Amino acid sequence: MCRFIAYIGKPIFADELLLKPKNSLMKQSYHALEAEMTVNGDGFGIGWYNHYRRKEPALFRSIRPAWNDENLSYNASMIKTNCLLAHIRAATQGGVSIQNSHPFQYKEFLMMQNGGINEFGKIKRKLINRLDDDIFQWIKGQTDTQYIFALFLTLAGELKKQKESLSYNDLSTCLSQTFAEIEDLKKQAKIDSPSLYNLVLTNGKALIATRYSTQPEIETRSLHIASRVDCYTCEHDGLKKESHEEEGRSVLIASEVLTENKDYWKEVPENHCIMVDEDLSINIKPLI
Amino acid sequence: MCRFIAYIGKPIFADELLLKPKNSLMKQSYHALEAEMTVNGDGFGIGWYNHYRRKEPALFRSIRPAWNDENLSYNASMIKTNCLLAHIRAATQGGVSIQNSHPFQYKEFLMMQNGGINEFGKIKRKLINRLDDDIFQWIKGQTDTQYIFALFLTLAGELKKQKESLSYNDLSTCLSQTFAEIEDLKKQAKIDSPSLYNLVLTNGKALIATRYSTQPEIETRSLHIASRVDCYTCEHDGLKKESHEEEGRSVLIASEVLTENKDYWKEVPENHCIMVDEDLSINIKPLI
Amino acid sequence: MCRFIAYIGKPIFADELLLKPKNSLMKQSYHALEAEMTVNGDGFGIGWYNHYRRKEPALFRSIRPAWNDENLSYNASMIKTNCLLAHIRAATQGGVSIQNSHPFQYKEFLMMQNGGINEFGKIKRKLINRLDDDIFQWIKGQTDTQYIFALFLTLAGELKKQKESLSYNDLSTCLSQTFAEIEDLKKQAKIDSPSLYNLVLTNGKALIATRYSTQPEIETRSLHIASRVDCYTCEHDGLKKESHEEEGRSVLIASEVLTENKDYWKEVPENHCIMVDEDLSINIKPLI
Amino acid sequence: MCRFIAYIGKPIFADELLLKPKNSLMKQSYHALEAEMTVNGDGFGIGWYNHYRRKEPALFRSIRPAWNDENLSYNASMIKTNCLLAHIRAATQGGVSIQNSHPFQYKEFLMMQNGGINEFGKIKRKLINRLDDDIFQWIKGQTDTQYIFALFLTLAGELKKQKESLSYNDLSTCLSQTFAEIEDLKKQAKIDSPSLYNLVLTNGKALIATRYSTQPEIETRSLHIASRVDCYTCEHDGLKKESHEEEGRSVLIASEVLTENKDYWKEVPENHCIMVDEDLSINIKPLI
Repeated sequence: MCRFIAYIGKPIFADELLLKPKNSLMKQSYHALEAEMTVNGDGFGIGWYNHYRRKEPALFRSIRPAWNDENLSYNASMIKTNCLLAHIRAATQGGVSIQNSHPFQYKEFLMMQNGGINEFGKIKRKLINRLDDDIFQWIKGQTDTQYIFALFLTLAGELKKQKESLSYNDLSTCLSQTFAEIEDLKKQAKIDSPSLYNLVLTNGKALIATRYSTQPEIETRSLHIASRVDCYTCEHDGLKKESHEEEGRSVLIASEVLTENKDYWKEVPENHCIMVDEDLSINIKPLI
Repeated sequence: MCRFIAYIGKPIFADELLLKPKNSLMKQSYHALEAEMTVNGDGFGIGWYNHYRRKEPALFRSIRPAWNDENLSYNASMIKTNCLLAHIRAATQGGVSIQNSHPFQYKEFLMMQNGGINEFGKIKRKLINRLDDDIFQWIKGQTDTQYIFALFLTLAGELKKQKESLSYNDLSTCLSQTFAEIEDLKKQAKIDSPSLYNLVLTNGKALIATRYSTQPEIETRSLHIASRVDCYTCEHDGLKKESHEEEGRSVLIASEVLTENKDYWKEVPENHCIMVDEDLSINIKPLI
Repeated sequence: MCRFIAYIGKPIFADELLLKPKNSLMKQSYHALEAEMTVNGDGFGIGWYNHYRRKEPALFRSIRPAWNDENLSYNASMIKTNCLLAHIRAATQGGVSIQNSHPFQYKEFLMMQNGGINEFGKIKRKLINRLDDDIFQWIKGQTDTQYIFALFLTLAGELKKQKESLSYNDLSTCLSQTFAEIEDLKKQAKIDSPSLYNLVLTNGKALIATRYSTQPEIETRSLHIASRVDCYTCEHDGLKKESHEEEGRSVLIASEVLTENKDYWKEVPENHCIMVDEDLSINIKPLI
Repeated sequence: MCRFIAYIGKPIFADELLLKPKNSLMKQSYHALEAEMTVNGDGFGIGWYNHYRRKEPALFRSIRPAWNDENLSYNASMIKTNCLLAHIRAATQGGVSIQNSHPFQYKEFLMMQNGGINEFGKIKRKLINRLDDDIFQWIKGQTDTQYIFALFLTLAGELKKQKESLSYNDLSTCLSQTFAEIEDLKKQAKIDSPSLYNLVLTNGKALIATRYSTQPEIETRSLHIASRVDCYTCEHDGLKKESHEEEGRSVLIASEVLTENKDYWKEVPENHCIMVDEDLSINIKPLI
């Protein structure tokens, strides 16, 4: 099943998000509230950015459950970042290994997913043949997410040949196209079980998240957003409403509501894409 | 919290006990039924005997959750033994490490526990000073169980100086004395929270198990026994009643009932000790 | 670089091969003698057979160095088998993970390798397209060895459609063809660096080993064979010559000579294939 | 055997010290140059300070060899600190576990060691009885270093009751006293084999390192110091001599010379203590 959170905004310490909330990701690793599978103990990963140092993110991944990894619990409060992705895994596609732990990193990008493509093995080879060769060779694990990411990177690469630079609208178009191509492969392979694409993509400056089920009436994954809040106060179980929009704007996207007080959270509508731009403005648009 | 099972009797393959039952230990690792803490994912261990080869048991321990360790799931059906101890851990005393994974082995003996001594740190040093020096140096981890085992081994060693050989009655007396000495140390340290000694001790030929809470009205741990049954049929959710006592006698002791059908199981009475002798005869006696 | 040993013959305990020889595989893990890279600490694996239990082998693999894995050192003497493959890894293709640890298992077969295909990434996708779909989906890691094994299995599957059953001569032909097809792909991709195929394939009853470099004048890997010896005496640094051929015949193949006394060992000639049949008769034939 | 480096001075990125030097700690993990035991693959640890965030250091430890841990190699360049301790382990006392990986942390202090007390087990219990109770309960592993650290902390605690605050001279006195008390225990136990105390202690602002063998004519460990150098240039195999003493002063202490050019390094004299004060002034004094 997996669970994740993504944060972008004013610099924050990682423990504010990972450890302190009532329903923190660490707690979700052994007791998730909004999932059938309550245990997410098949490894975890966190990626974060320090743009003063390098454009590529830092990335710490482990095969241990998040709840018992002392490196995570002891060091989270030392990580300061404007953009953090964190993921706890309940393995479905691919064994437990660091190479299969989300988030996945390619150059400045990170991607992570909560969901999956049913019967992925049946379309895997066709998908491989669709990939750019460099991108294909970059894949190090066996999860379907890595292949979704690879197809996205291939499509973005193709688009970049036509345009100087890609806007976040362009990237969301590439994501839509990624889903469409995969669903097309599934159709060709006569697979009619649902795909669930709850995923987050970021370069550390802007961020895209999708909540997308091909058959939401059969199966869906939860996704929530909290915006214009001050996450420093997660520990007191409240995301403080910001008084001044200028300081402290931030956006938090999560599989599960992190706090007892649910007022700050909105459900992301089914089959929509959230785009958070570099100025932290938020656009929500439907995915075809 | 931890969960465990202990088996002694006719030779059996380990997967019959560990993987196939409806409520197998592997399932209990992410979803225990008879415990407050449903996840036991802080490592696991199995110990088993092949008396034709050596008197010391084999011992495989891991820091990974039992449910995702491929070495366990793939090889369990290759292990054949007349005596198996298996333990899944929810860490309380001592971090997650192989050295802290039960069962613990000393010469031909294995011990494992589900329970614990509250505020153990406060009496640890006094307990250390009570130990035989060789036994003290044998300790490799930080769990209270290792210290309980060490005190037991010290007391058994002292008794052995007086007697040619120790009967299982002697060993159960040493266990009682172990609990009594620890409780005495707690009393001296003015600790009045309960101790829970649900533990199993074996040399691969006979076996002792205890269910013992110093304050059962406040806190207790479940313990069950199934005897004179054929465990080969765990997979069909039934422990087949044996028609012929001669062949196939075996005894199974477990924190939780393993099968849906509960007819074959009896609850071990609070504050009692079960002794299974080399001929698989069972004696139950109260602990002080 | 990697190092390996393969044993087939009368039943033996695994510690005789893995731990006791002067130049045991455990010692080679931190101090190999016949390799440029003396450390092989990127995980290890052992596979062994118990034909009375199942045709598929047991398989224990770890990401830890062999020298410090207590599960290996403590339990090796409890494993009794007529056929054992053991491998210590120095990672080149693919990160350190259990999924990338040799030997690899498919049904009753095990394969392991010491060597590699240079610039494998450049031909990987073409190789993938050559594979049988079931075989492709079986691949769980990123090493070139898994793809060599997969191509071999594909070719063997194709041959099996034409013949009732495959002889060991057939299998060695499939291996030759595997190498030839890969080299053909490399030629098409204009890769002219050498490939080194020192590998072992077994079903636990018979065994094939190859020593094959496409450019032996540039690069080669050592391979040795000891036959008709009693390996129980490895610990006294001698492989006892057998007096009676009937009892105790066995064959040992290893990257490095295991004993100080080198009399029992012969170097496998460059670019040859060793076939050990079910009756332990040995045939050596040149590859292409 | 173990190897370590300690850095204090102007802020530096960790990869400059850990990855880039010709003889970096990562390289020493599989091929140490100044030690009999060339492999230090039994886990590693790094501790570093960010005084703006908290007085306690960050601490990342692993049971994997440093050379194959992707978390270390990928993230080292993201760690910026004025004080870094890094240690690679070749296990002698205590099994391979995170709890036994150096450096060890107590409040704001870090300690690590390359060396050891021979026959430590024989004095361990007496040493335990000498410890302050809180300090004793803090110990989580089995290495002798943790007990040396614990005795030091006990002695420093006792001294602090008499003085407002402890100078670095006081702390070095406590270290001397620690060694003396341990040697006294060894003498009582009639142990006459050498102890080797090459260790580093820091609070992130000042630093003490010792090179001390009780019998240097029998056994010693190497220790080197490079001062008033610019470590940013380790990668070009040179520690640039600083032109301006004011900016960029730093001190580097290491088991092995890190660079090919040895001009910047001095050997720490046998049985001496190096004290680096908060202003980075260096004092060297003999240890009794």
